[in-house]
Amino acid sequence: MKIIGIADTTFARFDMGGAAADELKRNGTGFKIIRCTVPGIKDLPVACKKLIEEQNCDIVIALGMPGPKDKDKMCAHEASQGLIQAQLMTNTHIIEVFVHEDETSDSKTLAFLADRRAREHALNAYNLLFRPDDLAKSAGKGLRQGFDDAGPIR
Amino acid sequence: MKIIGIADTTFARFDMGGAAADELKRNGTGFKIIRCTVPGIKDLPVACKKLIEEQNCDIVIALGMPGPKDKDKMCAHEASQGLIQAQLMTNTHIIEVFVHEDETSDSKTLAFLADRRAREHALNAYNLLFRPDDLAKSAGKGLRQGFDDAGPIR
Amino acid sequence: MKIIGIADTTFARFDMGGAAADELKRNGTGFKIIRCTVPGIKDLPVACKKLIEEQNCDIVIALGMPGPKDKDKMCAHEASQGLIQAQLMTNTHIIEVFVHEDETSDSKTLAFLADRRAREHALNAYNLLFRPDDLAKSAGKGLRQGFDDAGPIR
Amino acid sequence: MKIIGIADTTFARFDMGGAAADELKRNGTGFKIIRCTVPGIKDLPVACKKLIEEQNCDIVIALGMPGPKDKDKMCAHEASQGLIQAQLMTNTHIIEVFVHEDETSDSKTLAFLADRRAREHALNAYNLLFRPDDLAKSAGKGLRQGFDDAGPIR
Amino acid sequence: MKIIGIADTTFARFDMGGAAADELKRNGTGFKIIRCTVPGIKDLPVACKKLIEEQNCDIVIALGMPGPKDKDKMCAHEASQGLIQAQLMTNTHIIEVFVHEDETSDSKTLAFLADRRAREHALNAYNLLFRPDDLAKSAGKGLRQGFDDAGPIR
Repeated sequence: MKIIGIADTTFARFDMGGAAADELKRNGTGFKIIRCTVPGIKDLPVACKKLIEEQNCDIVIALGMPGPKDKDKMCAHEASQGLIQAQLMTNTHIIEVFVHEDETSDSKTLAFLADRRAREHALNAYNLLFRPDDLAKSAGKGLRQGFDDAGPIR
Repeated sequence: MKIIGIADTTFARFDMGGAAADELKRNGTGFKIIRCTVPGIKDLPVACKKLIEEQNCDIVIALGMPGPKDKDKMCAHEASQGLIQAQLMTNTHIIEVFVHEDETSDSKTLAFLADRRAREHALNAYNLLFRPDDLAKSAGKGLRQGFDDAGPIR
Repeated sequence: MKIIGIADTTFARFDMGGAAADELKRNGTGFKIIRCTVPGIKDLPVACKKLIEEQNCDIVIALGMPGPKDKDKMCAHEASQGLIQAQLMTNTHIIEVFVHEDETSDSKTLAFLADRRAREHALNAYNLLFRPDDLAKSAGKGLRQGFDDAGPIR
Repeated sequence: MKIIGIADTTFARFDMGGAAADELKRNGTGFKIIRCTVPGIKDLPVACKKLIEEQNCDIVIALGMPGPKDKDKMCAHEASQGLIQAQLMTNTHIIEVFVHEDETSDSKTLAFLADRRAREHALNAYNLLFRPDDLAKSAGKGLRQGFDDAGPIR
Repeated sequence: MKIIGIADTTFARFDMGGAAADELKRNGTGFKIIRCTVPGIKDLPVACKKLIEEQNCDIVIALGMPGPKDKDKMCAHEASQGLIQAQLMTNTHIIEVFVHEDETSDSKTLAFLADRRAREHALNAYNLLFRPDDLAKSAGKGLRQGFDDAGPIR
């Protein structure tokens, strides 16, 4: 039985962790989910590392929604660096799912984007854990999560 | 008996550490507080790591007030990176509470913001330690510290 | 028998990993290739570290194609930092092969660039592993991968 | 007997290390000073770590004077990150004393600033080592080093 | 017998490593030189760490010539961070000698600068290893490598 961690925030304005958990349950078996919620995205790196080292998660999905200000962009950068560092310290993948508040011009599209990106990255995490060959088949295919795929060039 | 560390600076123009300590005492029991004051925010990462490793703190609240210049913004960035690194090295949460001097246009609002953000993040630290389920219930709710909550989208 | 790792992404819009593998096979023997595909470039650092530590790769080629937006540039920066960190943690070279989508003005040139840079860096990886003296002979020669060499000054 | 390390550079245009050493000797006893000079600020992090781990320093003061160009600002940023990392690896404070060449418009004021900031931070280092309660009393007081204190708000 | 490592790149447009090696041989004895050439500056951090840990170098000189584009500046930043990290992981100095292609307006001056900076930093490395007191005497003297010294203020 594999363990998939889901770490999200109270700062995010959409229940991205819920969407990721729902998508995982719809699409596979053979795993259990452990969830953890922290205040903001800068709290995610250590939360994910604790899920891996103290809760034995085999992979973690880290979800957050950075705000539109320069300060928020910097927070996202710092969180991303921390998430990469946490992965290197544990030899375990953490799939980062960030939706920036200014990626869309209206709330409805933002909710749609947050939901879809969380779900598509949940499947990426599932595939990394159970079906790495599925990812290999899509190498260089221009896949995107949330918005439509860009597709391969030419 | 849990131990909550509070690290703050002589650079800050408001006693944010005092506000955090006061809020903790008003809202809970079962913990003791250890405080530590350093000159500036770049001294916070090692101060917090020492609180965790040498004073056995179970969680730390790191408070600071970066100035308005580009140089100050860079200091805040470096301090934040260090705080994330300290958490990853100790598997322990450090709640960063930074109030930027240019977040408000007048001193009175700045004092209000520093006080309120310190108090609200003190409760976040308390909840992470004693009531993690309270945070889980607020996942994706658009909570903010200091200013009003943004709330969930839709 | 040496092992060369190739890590690439489903985000890239060209099969750069395939080009690197093809070039290696055309030019040398005495090694086997292990491939790994992840969603995006920020997933590459831990993927490369796992190739080194869990699959015993002697060197890794990490290929990706960052998008044209500021957010994409930041992702590339974070991935690069992580790749350097992974190398320092393992004392093993990881040759980064990134092609930015905005390096060319049309798709056809982009595909040409991605293919050629992947192939030229595959040879760099091969030389680092088997013929380090070939690199030493080209010290300060202004070599480039993908576009034409700049050449030495004067 | 405590040991205070002082690391400075040949790049700086003022003998900041000398000023720090002089101030320490004027104000306290019970310690000895070990000095180390490196070419530039990017050489300071490892110099400080060696002072701590190979010369048994209990605290280190790292002094430098970054130039006015963008490239110099980036050097200062990299040095600061390294100094924070060195502290986290050793659980030892390193007090960074950087004076940017463009903080003043004339040389005379720059010399005054470099001297005063070095001296005031030397006292911070002394207090961190011998009188941490003195810092605690000044929490949130808006203290500055070199220029006048900003003071607390309200 | 001390060992001095020299790491340079095939990307650089001038044989900076050769200049550094020549200068070392002209000015001192009691050491041997081990050279290593990698494709670009982002390959330097691990190359230097391997020189230290696998070839027993007592100090390393890392030479490179970043291009003029924003992307090149970012590469230089990432390489510098890695070089600092490598030093902290090994408690060994790595003298970074970077010449940016846009530091001069013509090729001839660029070659002059690359040669002179490499030579002057080679002497810095030599002094750090054999004559640290020579550096101490120049603390705060405003020394520069390549261009003329700025000199002390006042």
